[in-house]
Amino acid sequence: MTPSDDIRLDFRRGEQVGLDEAVLCAHKPLPHLLEIARQARASGRGMLFTRLSPEQQAALVAQVEGPWDCCAVSRTAVLGAPHPLRGEGRVAVVAAGTSDAQVAHEALRTLAFAGEKATSVVDVGVAGLWRLLDRLEDIRRHPVVIVVAGMDAALPTVVGGLVGSALVAVPTSVGYGVAEGGHAALHSMLSSCAQGVPVMNIDNGFGAACAALRILRAADRLAGR
Amino acid sequence: MTPSDDIRLDFRRGEQVGLDEAVLCAHKPLPHLLEIARQARASGRGMLFTRLSPEQQAALVAQVEGPWDCCAVSRTAVLGAPHPLRGEGRVAVVAAGTSDAQVAHEALRTLAFAGEKATSVVDVGVAGLWRLLDRLEDIRRHPVVIVVAGMDAALPTVVGGLVGSALVAVPTSVGYGVAEGGHAALHSMLSSCAQGVPVMNIDNGFGAACAALRILRAADRLAGR
Amino acid sequence: MTPSDDIRLDFRRGEQVGLDEAVLCAHKPLPHLLEIARQARASGRGMLFTRLSPEQQAALVAQVEGPWDCCAVSRTAVLGAPHPLRGEGRVAVVAAGTSDAQVAHEALRTLAFAGEKATSVVDVGVAGLWRLLDRLEDIRRHPVVIVVAGMDAALPTVVGGLVGSALVAVPTSVGYGVAEGGHAALHSMLSSCAQGVPVMNIDNGFGAACAALRILRAADRLAGR
Amino acid sequence: MTPSDDIRLDFRRGEQVGLDEAVLCAHKPLPHLLEIARQARASGRGMLFTRLSPEQQAALVAQVEGPWDCCAVSRTAVLGAPHPLRGEGRVAVVAAGTSDAQVAHEALRTLAFAGEKATSVVDVGVAGLWRLLDRLEDIRRHPVVIVVAGMDAALPTVVGGLVGSALVAVPTSVGYGVAEGGHAALHSMLSSCAQGVPVMNIDNGFGAACAALRILRAADRLAGR
Amino acid sequence: MTPSDDIRLDFRRGEQVGLDEAVLCAHKPLPHLLEIARQARASGRGMLFTRLSPEQQAALVAQVEGPWDCCAVSRTAVLGAPHPLRGEGRVAVVAAGTSDAQVAHEALRTLAFAGEKATSVVDVGVAGLWRLLDRLEDIRRHPVVIVVAGMDAALPTVVGGLVGSALVAVPTSVGYGVAEGGHAALHSMLSSCAQGVPVMNIDNGFGAACAALRILRAADRLAGR
Amino acid sequence: MTPSDDIRLDFRRGEQVGLDEAVLCAHKPLPHLLEIARQARASGRGMLFTRLSPEQQAALVAQVEGPWDCCAVSRTAVLGAPHPLRGEGRVAVVAAGTSDAQVAHEALRTLAFAGEKATSVVDVGVAGLWRLLDRLEDIRRHPVVIVVAGMDAALPTVVGGLVGSALVAVPTSVGYGVAEGGHAALHSMLSSCAQGVPVMNIDNGFGAACAALRILRAADRLAGR
Amino acid sequence: MTPSDDIRLDFRRGEQVGLDEAVLCAHKPLPHLLEIARQARASGRGMLFTRLSPEQQAALVAQVEGPWDCCAVSRTAVLGAPHPLRGEGRVAVVAAGTSDAQVAHEALRTLAFAGEKATSVVDVGVAGLWRLLDRLEDIRRHPVVIVVAGMDAALPTVVGGLVGSALVAVPTSVGYGVAEGGHAALHSMLSSCAQGVPVMNIDNGFGAACAALRILRAADRLAGR
Amino acid sequence: MTPSDDIRLDFRRGEQVGLDEAVLCAHKPLPHLLEIARQARASGRGMLFTRLSPEQQAALVAQVEGPWDCCAVSRTAVLGAPHPLRGEGRVAVVAAGTSDAQVAHEALRTLAFAGEKATSVVDVGVAGLWRLLDRLEDIRRHPVVIVVAGMDAALPTVVGGLVGSALVAVPTSVGYGVAEGGHAALHSMLSSCAQGVPVMNIDNGFGAACAALRILRAADRLAGR
Repeated sequence: MTPSDDIRLDFRRGEQVGLDEAVLCAHKPLPHLLEIARQARASGRGMLFTRLSPEQQAALVAQVEGPWDCCAVSRTAVLGAPHPLRGEGRVAVVAAGTSDAQVAHEALRTLAFAGEKATSVVDVGVAGLWRLLDRLEDIRRHPVVIVVAGMDAALPTVVGGLVGSALVAVPTSVGYGVAEGGHAALHSMLSSCAQGVPVMNIDNGFGAACAALRILRAADRLAGR
Repeated sequence: MTPSDDIRLDFRRGEQVGLDEAVLCAHKPLPHLLEIARQARASGRGMLFTRLSPEQQAALVAQVEGPWDCCAVSRTAVLGAPHPLRGEGRVAVVAAGTSDAQVAHEALRTLAFAGEKATSVVDVGVAGLWRLLDRLEDIRRHPVVIVVAGMDAALPTVVGGLVGSALVAVPTSVGYGVAEGGHAALHSMLSSCAQGVPVMNIDNGFGAACAALRILRAADRLAGR
Repeated sequence: MTPSDDIRLDFRRGEQVGLDEAVLCAHKPLPHLLEIARQARASGRGMLFTRLSPEQQAALVAQVEGPWDCCAVSRTAVLGAPHPLRGEGRVAVVAAGTSDAQVAHEALRTLAFAGEKATSVVDVGVAGLWRLLDRLEDIRRHPVVIVVAGMDAALPTVVGGLVGSALVAVPTSVGYGVAEGGHAALHSMLSSCAQGVPVMNIDNGFGAACAALRILRAADRLAGR
Repeated sequence: MTPSDDIRLDFRRGEQVGLDEAVLCAHKPLPHLLEIARQARASGRGMLFTRLSPEQQAALVAQVEGPWDCCAVSRTAVLGAPHPLRGEGRVAVVAAGTSDAQVAHEALRTLAFAGEKATSVVDVGVAGLWRLLDRLEDIRRHPVVIVVAGMDAALPTVVGGLVGSALVAVPTSVGYGVAEGGHAALHSMLSSCAQGVPVMNIDNGFGAACAALRILRAADRLAGR
Repeated sequence: MTPSDDIRLDFRRGEQVGLDEAVLCAHKPLPHLLEIARQARASGRGMLFTRLSPEQQAALVAQVEGPWDCCAVSRTAVLGAPHPLRGEGRVAVVAAGTSDAQVAHEALRTLAFAGEKATSVVDVGVAGLWRLLDRLEDIRRHPVVIVVAGMDAALPTVVGGLVGSALVAVPTSVGYGVAEGGHAALHSMLSSCAQGVPVMNIDNGFGAACAALRILRAADRLAGR
Repeated sequence: MTPSDDIRLDFRRGEQVGLDEAVLCAHKPLPHLLEIARQARASGRGMLFTRLSPEQQAALVAQVEGPWDCCAVSRTAVLGAPHPLRGEGRVAVVAAGTSDAQVAHEALRTLAFAGEKATSVVDVGVAGLWRLLDRLEDIRRHPVVIVVAGMDAALPTVVGGLVGSALVAVPTSVGYGVAEGGHAALHSMLSSCAQGVPVMNIDNGFGAACAALRILRAADRLAGR
Repeated sequence: MTPSDDIRLDFRRGEQVGLDEAVLCAHKPLPHLLEIARQARASGRGMLFTRLSPEQQAALVAQVEGPWDCCAVSRTAVLGAPHPLRGEGRVAVVAAGTSDAQVAHEALRTLAFAGEKATSVVDVGVAGLWRLLDRLEDIRRHPVVIVVAGMDAALPTVVGGLVGSALVAVPTSVGYGVAEGGHAALHSMLSSCAQGVPVMNIDNGFGAACAALRILRAADRLAGR
Repeated sequence: MTPSDDIRLDFRRGEQVGLDEAVLCAHKPLPHLLEIARQARASGRGMLFTRLSPEQQAALVAQVEGPWDCCAVSRTAVLGAPHPLRGEGRVAVVAAGTSDAQVAHEALRTLAFAGEKATSVVDVGVAGLWRLLDRLEDIRRHPVVIVVAGMDAALPTVVGGLVGSALVAVPTSVGYGVAEGGHAALHSMLSSCAQGVPVMNIDNGFGAACAALRILRAADRLAGR
């Protein structure tokens, strides 16, 4: 059998639910990953690759013709053209610490690929509350807010109590001891005393962006756009 | 000290984020619960009580003047007037099994209290796929879909791949063995292969409804309403 | 064998470390508990009983001569005379929600038994941030602050970033789903982004009070008192 | 002591239960692994090696005379002759994603070694339901179906509700966050709402193949073959 | 809404996969359970109820016309006529201890309802190995063997090494300390050194019987029956 | 089927390994338990019953002819004659707290039933170190020492560093929060910095006594007795 | 975006709570870490870096002008001038084993950076009780005692029963099996039978030092200093 | 400070409890390890080093004068002279699989260092029961039996039911999926249906040997030797 026997790209999904399939590169053998990129290239559509190791990224860029747009912080790459800009300023990505930037940038890159330019507000964790309060009015301006935090993940509770926007929370795997792997942050977010804060899997910035896109699509639909 | 020393009702939250504080009755001593109901009554506002035990409900209704609107399946009660109807047909609550009805009804009651009448689609788990496919077009008509499931919680993945609406998933504590307590369902939902499916804490139908309300508020704002 | 064969009251501990042994009543068979109370009574010293079930409390009061001072919210009882008042206003007990009152009161009762009158600040969780900010100056006045919270336990992180006092955090078992049993709150507190926030076992209001007493003793010693 | 003191190859098992002992190479020191291969070689029987690291495979091929048949995707090697083909088209191996191919191939290789040629159906996860429905009739043709999936592992529930064949489910360790290590997939499968879906340990494609072989042997026996 | 809004009996499943839907009674509110029984009664088909509490069983028998066949050990009830006997002596249910009898009987009752009469071999745990060895030849006569065990669950490993039949293992929740809830038994079974031993959820005797029925259907099909 | 179909008393074990089978009553249905007692009675041998609920004990004593010797603290009962006294003063049972007495007494009762009279040293936890040091010489006199402790289970580490006897440690389920269920105590004992401290399952006083009996039998054998 | 967009140094915290922000280097991308060091350098303040990998340390020293004071055992570095010495002999850092030295040294370095010179007492685990007893009077002289231990973490219970000072316990990740990662030590400390022993996250020597500094500030304040 | 400030070799322990302190090398920084070896060398006593990485072993042998006796399989080294042979044939070390040899050899080496020569019986797991039964009489000849097993760890239950000797069980970290890390094996052993089987921490072959030595010392003492 060849790698292509193990692959079925799902272009129907984009048509049906309005979100493109993206390629989660972790756990994929390199031959399969290259084959996926070649099929995407041949289809003429843009495709987003997430959780690329440096080795995977180097091999893709070297062996599959681009254009490639790679980002080291978010470990993502875009092959081909992203979607044209459809909205701006509708989503804020708010992150507690510098260490959470990797996940925040994955969300920002996914939104940009889908044509939504978002606002980045990083390093505003509530252990230094003034940092958040300084940016509060700016955050409130956005109808959708993605909140990224690790460790004790106290940020979405405070944001959720101050901001009425639609929220999506993303725990990160930053931390050590009981925080290692992000389970403390996940459980803290799921237990948030603020109302109406749904949560993504640990480090799933991509998924948070997709949830935000679903919300914006629903809003467009309700507005008759 | 008296119970009132331990209570600070937070009416500012409703003004600020557009969601009323509700009272989670589990874990609250009865004297404190009665005091809360009395303060709410005195304020003239409607208030939602969730996770009421039968004993708590009986004591509230007997000792605090109503009007009370109680629901045994969802274990909720409304004291005073709910919000006037602001929307209808914008949210579907889809549940996998009859055993998940309790959580689905908590979401439905919370939405109704806030003035959103929602559509209920229960017992459509994907082990009998035709049940879901029969209702698919109806579900798709709603811009926001709450998906409730226990056990393996496969429903949101199938729905998420077929429906482009904004989604909120709620795991339930239904099940036994590894499913007991709902952790298997929670982990399954957080790991969903469908894109953009944010998740609430186990059994948190109230929170899912609040997340849906945040989305509808965001949509209203984007539509300039 | 009789119950007294299984009991060795440890009066030397109070002399040596300045904290009296207290009796954790959960898990103790009633005959053993009664024997402990009788020995304490015979010794002429006051003794604190914690985590009393209503049945245990009733049996103690009925079968062992007092004076007894019982408190239903904190589930504690004092047999004999508490220590004379040695300090006041040196400890604040700050709790996030009404449901956390039980643990907060256990701490307050333990401090009072040891002769420290503390300040109670309950229902100031950060999902309604203004409630905390309203009380901030009052909290800051206390050199030692015990912070009690369940669920996401975001309170100690915000307090820890705003207040320079010595802190002791206590997670509570309030909550459901991933918050059930208090493990989410415990892990959140241990992962706090605020610096220097040590943590007690879940629901251990008694232990937090003892930690505060150790701090006050250390301060007295440093001040040459 | 020498490595051979620590080894007792168990050829009686094959005679007794109709399944050959295979060698799980992970955790085995290289000297012991080489000694096992040499003893197998000397016995004149074929032997299957699973979970070979690249280093182990290279050392075996270099230091023990073949014939060797190695497969990088499944990380297996066969030393000597496999069993002659006894059946074909009786088992389907159905996998949710490309990342699950490694485990699916371990099952396929184990079946082939035992003389059963199986059908491979990969990348038909239910987040893109049409992929599965397109292949449904083909899957139904097989009396035994092995279902391989990671993450939320929703596939066996949908398959189990649509296909009446004997099923064996295998969770994979593909995923991150709560899915990491495959425990979410395992628990999801064990909690499946579909009836009669037994489950193997995480990534145990070898064991699933053996379970399928047991079923086929039982069928042969019932058919008087 | 009425309970019937929350119920959709799935009679198509039986037609499609050859296994009837059964009713897991735990977690179901009584009004819903009664409604299900009434709909089943009206359909004229037999129906199996599992995990009945004594209160649920009493209410069903009192309020829904029979015939009812109830079993206290397995906590099951059959409403209406079971399937006619289609096979006998094809399945053995082997259980380690007397305490595992409840789960073993759930499997036996499910098989009997489906028309398969099975052999019961209980209290043959391997801590007293002779008990198993005495019954070995009898067990081997059955092409399908269900193995039920709690605690350390060593039984399926020994059986799996001695018996070539198709196997299904069921861990039970019998035990205390690390064995409490059955997780130690589950993990032990999943880690079995015997080959090809698939495992059901804890206490899932019903599911094991369904897996056995799938195997027998597959065998019938292969035999052209 | 009748309960006796589910029971096979294992008298061969006692002959083979020198330890009688005892009956763990938790999880056993009452009809089965009564049948076991009747078979034991008929055999003429003494039998030990452990983890008896008060209801089980009452039913046994009422319905099966004795002599019965029941103990409420250890929740054990002996039916018939215990073994004659074979040794005395060879085992010490050392327990940290009054709450651990239940488990300590289960060990003491098991030893007594087997003919070993042991020394009880209870309430010597190392938070009040002098209590242990006062009894140290007495403990050292015993060649076998069972150490029982819950919570942080620090006792076996201190004893293991001071006493050269053969040790068996038993964690208890006493405690709350992270100590609840005894897992913290179990893990603490397994991680003991003292050398050569093997550990039983949580609350398994019976097993610890059996381990002590095995050691004494081995010693007798080495001494040629 | 550049790394500086993701960074907001929080100098206000030091002013407000009297503890400087320190930089936890684990999980931080190198470009962000270098930018932080440059901003700190530009501010003219001293800054503490913790959990530095050797690669991070080398890059910082090479690319950002010092003075740098690096410590390999504690994996910390100080950039610029530490705080002047404000106290001495007020804190003892007591560690159970040589393997715990890394965490103990992190606490000692943090205290030194803040101007508190502390006493180090290492390798006094209670499996060799005399080692602790030899140093007991010295430890008692310190009003604040930090206790560091891994594995079974029995040390704080013994110290807590013998020493009346304010205590802070730190579990370490030293160990294997159930002790791996430090969770056994954490749970043991949280369950300590000694009274008033608050606990930090695993390996959090930095946080323990901050807690000690809070206590000393509180003492200074009470003493009117 | 220098490494020697962090080290206190505990020679008193050997005198007091009859077991030498050994050096667990994992987690120890190299400078500290070298200093320990030098102090041991200077003391003139033999010392056992366990869990040596290849790098640590090379550094020790190169930098500290011997004689050194190193073993790669068990990852142990002996510095100086072991204890003279005091016993032989009193302990059997029985291991389930070749992969468990590493732990079995650690136990064998520890016994040999202490002067006890033991019998090795490896690869007798109960999935191939005949392998164990072939060696049963040999195993029974030993008054103390150490049983080593990973995965489902069924071996000690079968051995415990057939052999009356004093037993010590050791789980190993061999395995994958739910067996990874050895927790399934540990829990299985703790839940063993065989009576009187105490358990060591995962992979703790050293500790099992020490437990065996304690038993032999107790036997010697009872025999008046």
